[in-house]
Amino acid sequence: MNAVVSRPRANVNAARLERRIADLAAVTDPQFPWSRTAFSPLHREGRVWLAREMASLGLSTAIDAGANLIGRLRGQRPELAPMATGSHSDTVPSGGRFDGAAGILVALEALHAMRDAGIELNHTLEIIDFLAEEPNQYGLSCIGSRAMVGALTAADLQRTAPDGTTLSEGMASMGGDPDGLDMPLRTQGDLSVFVELHIEQGRVLESGGLDIGVVTDIVGIRRLEVRMMGRADHSGATPMIMRADALAGAAEIIVGFERRAEAEKLAPLVATVGKLNVIPNAANVVPGQVDFTLEVRAATEAAIIGYLADVTGEMQSIAERRGLKLAAEMAGTNLPVKMSLMVQSAIAGAAEALGLRHQAMPSGAGHDAAFVARLCPVGMIFVPSKDGRSHCPEEYTSPSQLAAGAQVLLTTLLHLDTTLTRDAQLRNAQ
Amino acid sequence: MNAVVSRPRANVNAARLERRIADLAAVTDPQFPWSRTAFSPLHREGRVWLAREMASLGLSTAIDAGANLIGRLRGQRPELAPMATGSHSDTVPSGGRFDGAAGILVALEALHAMRDAGIELNHTLEIIDFLAEEPNQYGLSCIGSRAMVGALTAADLQRTAPDGTTLSEGMASMGGDPDGLDMPLRTQGDLSVFVELHIEQGRVLESGGLDIGVVTDIVGIRRLEVRMMGRADHSGATPMIMRADALAGAAEIIVGFERRAEAEKLAPLVATVGKLNVIPNAANVVPGQVDFTLEVRAATEAAIIGYLADVTGEMQSIAERRGLKLAAEMAGTNLPVKMSLMVQSAIAGAAEALGLRHQAMPSGAGHDAAFVARLCPVGMIFVPSKDGRSHCPEEYTSPSQLAAGAQVLLTTLLHLDTTLTRDAQLRNAQ
Repeated sequence: MNAVVSRPRANVNAARLERRIADLAAVTDPQFPWSRTAFSPLHREGRVWLAREMASLGLSTAIDAGANLIGRLRGQRPELAPMATGSHSDTVPSGGRFDGAAGILVALEALHAMRDAGIELNHTLEIIDFLAEEPNQYGLSCIGSRAMVGALTAADLQRTAPDGTTLSEGMASMGGDPDGLDMPLRTQGDLSVFVELHIEQGRVLESGGLDIGVVTDIVGIRRLEVRMMGRADHSGATPMIMRADALAGAAEIIVGFERRAEAEKLAPLVATVGKLNVIPNAANVVPGQVDFTLEVRAATEAAIIGYLADVTGEMQSIAERRGLKLAAEMAGTNLPVKMSLMVQSAIAGAAEALGLRHQAMPSGAGHDAAFVARLCPVGMIFVPSKDGRSHCPEEYTSPSQLAAGAQVLLTTLLHLDTTLTRDAQLRNAQ
Repeated sequence: MNAVVSRPRANVNAARLERRIADLAAVTDPQFPWSRTAFSPLHREGRVWLAREMASLGLSTAIDAGANLIGRLRGQRPELAPMATGSHSDTVPSGGRFDGAAGILVALEALHAMRDAGIELNHTLEIIDFLAEEPNQYGLSCIGSRAMVGALTAADLQRTAPDGTTLSEGMASMGGDPDGLDMPLRTQGDLSVFVELHIEQGRVLESGGLDIGVVTDIVGIRRLEVRMMGRADHSGATPMIMRADALAGAAEIIVGFERRAEAEKLAPLVATVGKLNVIPNAANVVPGQVDFTLEVRAATEAAIIGYLADVTGEMQSIAERRGLKLAAEMAGTNLPVKMSLMVQSAIAGAAEALGLRHQAMPSGAGHDAAFVARLCPVGMIFVPSKDGRSHCPEEYTSPSQLAAGAQVLLTTLLHLDTTLTRDAQLRNAQ
């Protein structure tokens, strides 16, 4: 961290950051705080405020073809590929003030503190508000980051919302240019690094008394949609031994899922049955059918695949023994994404230098950083979430926790600015 | 069975019975066969047809204050308390042609066969179509049989349907006299015996290749409504060891319910979780709450109470170990009802004499006979249900299976007429 301490000291201002959090949160549907859902007039209104804040700090602002709002501060060495940070300003309905917004506003505060201290970066710095990271009416998340890296297909653009509009029309309404999305907006080398700060959305930091999570991986996700078919019989007229009870079978299977996930050795893994429906769902009818979704997340594909192979075999033998029929269909796969070791080390070094308690951890949720990783080295900084709550009005990260995150982001960006400049010089000298 | 064989031989006519089944089934909502729901115009229309059939066999017909349709054939010894048989003519929506209707039409056929053979009974015989045995818009089953024995309370009469009418008004619309229900319509001694034929609604007879079930008990029922409360967490951000997963807990509990029911020694017992709801029920949220109903049925209260004590203890220890909160509430109790040994023996003797394969078995479903048992000795005859299906259009009992049931009912009634006449003579001689 010597490169950092040789610069003038820049200190983030917790009160100023808190004020910006409150100002953006105020752009909400007053009936359902906090709601600034993607593609809504409030989403656009929030971006108008954001662009003004960016401009007041000297950033030029623009909306790219993927309808990402990008603020740009020109560096002293504009020939270097820009560094980038940011997150997303959209929320789920009745969501929180921090999920997404914190990543953008902490970046603004870091920049503000640099400006106060008279620090200028070598690299041009972009603060990006990615379009529609959250689930939305078009049934696709991370729309802006997908568009940026060329992962938004022509079929995706024709997805329709319940109101009949296409995603293409939705993106145009946010200032994007869907016609310009037939190729990636950025390719490898167009950015030198991307760092995203986000709330943890879990209780690992809080319960460990930690300030900062250094994200190692964004986990992979597989969802298996399972249908157990038994026989709907009269509960009174059907002795236990004559039953094919789809719920009793599902229950035995679910207990097995949990046991196998807890025993996983290859990588930390979570397996969840969050959604389950019983048919016909009447107190006096033996369940004839149970539909449920098994979701598995881990930092390695090997762990996920090994887990699914084991539990699929176990499901089949339980179903056979009970005279149940089983149908299972894979319903979506996100591959795991590794965070850059260079960025992880910069974040951990910054936290260390600042005397903050930090821990390496996977991100169990998906983020825009997973797509940006196709362009450049990426890293993520987690700050604690009170009670692990997110996507609800109770979502909370204290001003001092946010300020600690902002100071880590600032220090990380300064460190990366220095080391990436040196690396570029070394490459050019070769 | 000597008393029986000394009479002229009476043989039921399977084709005639089949025709009556078809005629009553034709009184249905044509959009949703077979629908003749209680209190509907179709229910009344079916009864008009029934009353005409009764009258054509020489029965006088009347509707009592409980809106039960009663056909009466005067016996040679009118001083004896009448014998009774019958069931109910209402159906669930999109139900079957046999549940309820079979018990009435088989009784008509038995009487028809007696008449053909010139047999006259000593006892007056009543064929009763009880009002609204099935679940209906007033949220109460077995309304007519409850009314008959004085088990319909003033509060019950004020129950309201979604259309705003009271049960009292509903009963009046079916020809009843709710003002006359402040005391039982019948008391002990008003009937000498009641025999109800019904479809089994299960697969015990079919899978055993049997013709006739001799019902030993109508099982008792207890329903426990259980709420498991955990913590709704982000599935990705919450390691397995930090979870309080209400569904995983419920699954472990449900597996235990099944194991304990299968191990029951005291009496055949069934335990069912037919209804279960997960909250919030999203694939990526650890279930925060699960509500389910545990239903337990057995022929003895001791078995039910012992079962519930065991599983309640087990539930609590599972919930504690998993950090879940548990709330359980008893949501309804039907006490078990024993069938008369005299009637069981008459039914078994009749089946035996007719060369039919029969078996003693409990009724897992509730029936009007459970209420009539407060007045007089009762018994029930079960006939097979194809695939155990009931309360659905696929419900089926073949003409020959129904005819076998009719012949058993006829033979049983003749036997009881003889033995009960002798018993009355002995009592009078004392």
